[in-house]
Amino acid sequence: MASKRIVVVGGSAAGPKAAARAKRMDLQAEVLLLQKEAELSMASCGYPYFVGGTCQRREQLLCTPTGVVRDPAFFAAAKGVQAKVRTEVTAIDRSRRTVTARNLDSGVEESIAYDKLILCTGASPKLPPIPGLELAGITPLHSLADAEGMRELSRREGCRHAVVVGGGLIGMETAEALVAVGMHVTVVELLPQVLTFLDPDLALLVENHARSKGVDILLGNGVAEFLGKEGRVSGVRLRDGAELPCELAVVAIGVVPNTRLAREAGLEVGAGGGITVNAHMRTSDPDIYAAGDCVEIVQRITGKRVLAPFGDLANLEGRVAGENAVLGDRKTFPGTIHSGICRIFDYNAGSTGLSERRAREEGFEVVCAVNASLDKPGFMGTARLLISKMVADARTRRVLGFQCVGAGEVNRQVAEAAVAVAAGMTVDDLANLDLPYAPPFSLAIDHFIATAHVLQNKMDGLLDGVSCLDVRGLLQNGPKPFLLDVRAPDEFKEMRLDAGETHIPLGKLRLGLAAGTLQGLPADKETSIVAYCKISMRGYEAQRILEAHGYGNVQVMEGGLMAWPFGLKRGE
Amino acid sequence: MASKRIVVVGGSAAGPKAAARAKRMDLQAEVLLLQKEAELSMASCGYPYFVGGTCQRREQLLCTPTGVVRDPAFFAAAKGVQAKVRTEVTAIDRSRRTVTARNLDSGVEESIAYDKLILCTGASPKLPPIPGLELAGITPLHSLADAEGMRELSRREGCRHAVVVGGGLIGMETAEALVAVGMHVTVVELLPQVLTFLDPDLALLVENHARSKGVDILLGNGVAEFLGKEGRVSGVRLRDGAELPCELAVVAIGVVPNTRLAREAGLEVGAGGGITVNAHMRTSDPDIYAAGDCVEIVQRITGKRVLAPFGDLANLEGRVAGENAVLGDRKTFPGTIHSGICRIFDYNAGSTGLSERRAREEGFEVVCAVNASLDKPGFMGTARLLISKMVADARTRRVLGFQCVGAGEVNRQVAEAAVAVAAGMTVDDLANLDLPYAPPFSLAIDHFIATAHVLQNKMDGLLDGVSCLDVRGLLQNGPKPFLLDVRAPDEFKEMRLDAGETHIPLGKLRLGLAAGTLQGLPADKETSIVAYCKISMRGYEAQRILEAHGYGNVQVMEGGLMAWPFGLKRGE
Repeated sequence: MASKRIVVVGGSAAGPKAAARAKRMDLQAEVLLLQKEAELSMASCGYPYFVGGTCQRREQLLCTPTGVVRDPAFFAAAKGVQAKVRTEVTAIDRSRRTVTARNLDSGVEESIAYDKLILCTGASPKLPPIPGLELAGITPLHSLADAEGMRELSRREGCRHAVVVGGGLIGMETAEALVAVGMHVTVVELLPQVLTFLDPDLALLVENHARSKGVDILLGNGVAEFLGKEGRVSGVRLRDGAELPCELAVVAIGVVPNTRLAREAGLEVGAGGGITVNAHMRTSDPDIYAAGDCVEIVQRITGKRVLAPFGDLANLEGRVAGENAVLGDRKTFPGTIHSGICRIFDYNAGSTGLSERRAREEGFEVVCAVNASLDKPGFMGTARLLISKMVADARTRRVLGFQCVGAGEVNRQVAEAAVAVAAGMTVDDLANLDLPYAPPFSLAIDHFIATAHVLQNKMDGLLDGVSCLDVRGLLQNGPKPFLLDVRAPDEFKEMRLDAGETHIPLGKLRLGLAAGTLQGLPADKETSIVAYCKISMRGYEAQRILEAHGYGNVQVMEGGLMAWPFGLKRGE
Repeated sequence: MASKRIVVVGGSAAGPKAAARAKRMDLQAEVLLLQKEAELSMASCGYPYFVGGTCQRREQLLCTPTGVVRDPAFFAAAKGVQAKVRTEVTAIDRSRRTVTARNLDSGVEESIAYDKLILCTGASPKLPPIPGLELAGITPLHSLADAEGMRELSRREGCRHAVVVGGGLIGMETAEALVAVGMHVTVVELLPQVLTFLDPDLALLVENHARSKGVDILLGNGVAEFLGKEGRVSGVRLRDGAELPCELAVVAIGVVPNTRLAREAGLEVGAGGGITVNAHMRTSDPDIYAAGDCVEIVQRITGKRVLAPFGDLANLEGRVAGENAVLGDRKTFPGTIHSGICRIFDYNAGSTGLSERRAREEGFEVVCAVNASLDKPGFMGTARLLISKMVADARTRRVLGFQCVGAGEVNRQVAEAAVAVAAGMTVDDLANLDLPYAPPFSLAIDHFIATAHVLQNKMDGLLDGVSCLDVRGLLQNGPKPFLLDVRAPDEFKEMRLDAGETHIPLGKLRLGLAAGTLQGLPADKETSIVAYCKISMRGYEAQRILEAHGYGNVQVMEGGLMAWPFGLKRGE
């Protein structure tokens, strides 16, 4: 009997992983990897770092940790996988279990039989229907060719202004990369914020940081037309009529799954536009699996099928698909919780699970808390700020999501949150975690645990919090609350809200109220008071004290001045 | 009716947290914090960094993030807690609900009534019964006074040699600190390894690193006598008779809980020597709680009561005790999983849950896997090596423990593992985690997930692994296996085991076996073969290939040469 033949379509992330895994499951199997592009196993998440110069040589994006380029010879020798590049699969004949593959250089077509087929056709960049899109110098950052082109262009004499269309993760990473090579960059985003995996309050902090590094950011605005000169982009006209000159325009508004092959073969495709797979990564055809950016997977919190085009998930999905295609459906892929992280200059931003907005859209009744603290003890010298937001289900107390931004070690914070969210832990579980602690690595009460404490205090009715955004709204639109800054006098002198606040240091508040000598608080104890300090531990103490003295309407501005994203008055 | 009075004994970590929490729970309560030392809320985990000079001023170890020293005035103003320092509690009268407190300066004793008492009496350094212990220059690193004394002495002219007794976490951190100020340091450890929270294979890697930084480490040896000159330590005589000169000797062999007060009051004390508390941190007396280094808490994996004298846990326990003392037993503390981490020069080492040795001692049937990889993609420039070991219950597949060492980001790895172990996740849960990924932060398949993949492969019977230690044992004591290095020729030239290994690059092995042309493998297909590469991904491929060709006894050396702790031959 002939050995089993596994055909894998697509050679970026999920495909090579599925192929190598399949071969290891059954060394007798014949595993064929068909790739349209010339390269295999490209580290596409590294493209911004190749453009920006962190990564110097294109081979680094294509090689193993020991420096071997992952070409067909590598796949044959190291993985036992027969890889064919520049080979496009144009059709699937499910009844005959064959695919039609065309060599893009020779044009020769062949029919290849499969016992099991694994589709890893990936995604393509969304391109907006904007006049002028065909001009040279307008590019997504999706393929290695895109990255090479952008790298070359960004270093060309006279290429000084870039417009990045889209303020998502790729857009912001690309903006950083282009600033790194000396360009002036404007990010244009249709939505009122960048990085929509963050809630607006935290996104504003990242936006402020990017602006401080010279990136112009235009929100609630879009590109109406790409302007050209001699076939090259020379600028953009925005929806509001303004024009910006640019010699490079980057389109980073997301991706769409490549499902033409699957659709034409009659495979089920979901409402989100991705190939439908079950928990075994099997499509509606029992002989066809799919993995990577082309599929829809389960969002583990909502149970809904979603697109989750991330390189790490593609690898994990490919591993499951490759094993199941050979050994039967013995492994399951549980889905995504939408974990993500990025570095924008000296700032890190990450998220896992649902944001407050997403959770509310999904119908959860939520309680959220914002917390600001250093990542390590101040005496270590390397301590940096972290600002986080935790989102919990008000009914079950399950943590639904966590976001963290700042110059500090966001990496550890979001990673531990991702495990906690996947495990379905509650706020109370997190409040007493036993995490690794030593001064070079974290605070004695890790920032993540401290954030859970704030949220637990809110849920237990001890702390009544209000977000910086809501305070800003009250200041702008009324009714204006009584703002109470309880920091020390020298802190107040150095930096303050400057919004009509009253300054009473915490100690004076506590002792003055106890002694009955305190001046300056509202006579009406039902006045809305918002107390705060630098990070709002003292704001919380102030709330407790005021309540104990009969004030009935006191809230704490969560995260304190460190989470305030609207600018502060510095000096006297 | 008079307000409730909460008395807290001990002002280091658990005590201040319990006191502040108690006050916030009930602003009408009177909260008294009695502290024997002159200082409060000392960041004692920072002492090695104060000795080494990372932390320059003692005040930094005593102040809030905004720079306010946590003295009695601070506690009164900011926390509403009346703190008395230099005040030792000498007795508890449970029937009258009073404590006797003595001012250590005036000698005046007073009786203080309590409604609820919280004991946070901490621990004391173990001092070995060795002749000469009374000499000047011999010190633990437990109190701020110890730290100040050691800092001063280590910078004194003529103070050039230090002996650190004990190769645990504090011992190794102190060794680093003393090297940082220019001393020659010898660590003397009774056991055959340093850092016993690690299994021997990983501990050896840390030991090698410390040696490479100039620390002498003597294992399986102890100090028999401290030698003195004019009342000062001048050296040590070891158990094996050797003598080492030193002007400073650090005793770091652990701590014992301070339970005299509790014992004399008739409170229950456990077999491990700590005060017995229930999940609410309440002692055997319903009006007395206890928290911090003086208590025994539950090990969450074994269910046994253990000592866990860590600053982070002390804070969390204090928070629970403080709340429950005021509001009734509404919060629970789930216990410890023994998470820990430390930095030794440019190396990080962390652990959570049970080590392989501990798990076996506890009666678990375990499967373990060692994995080596970079922490980030090589093209990022900042990528560093990580070597990890994961321990799982063979029956339930639950992950019992995880250890990680290396120059890379051990912090994230052990933190995510700590959450996973606390959540009771299985190897299969970890294999498909959705963790935050971007090139500045991790690999596409995070090292932690990759380690779970190795372990899953072992548990599924795909990979048969053998540890570097076991290979070493076979090489020394026989039967000697056939060693097969499957790396590329240039890698082999650069560095190799040099233990009689055969070198056949993976591709040559695969293609040669397929073609039937391969020379150099044992004729007897039942020969014991150990395959390996740099990190052993290729070793795993080799095992699969050899098995497919009928070799019946092939194992992979886990972690490859990167996990080999016995030295390698470099160059030809």
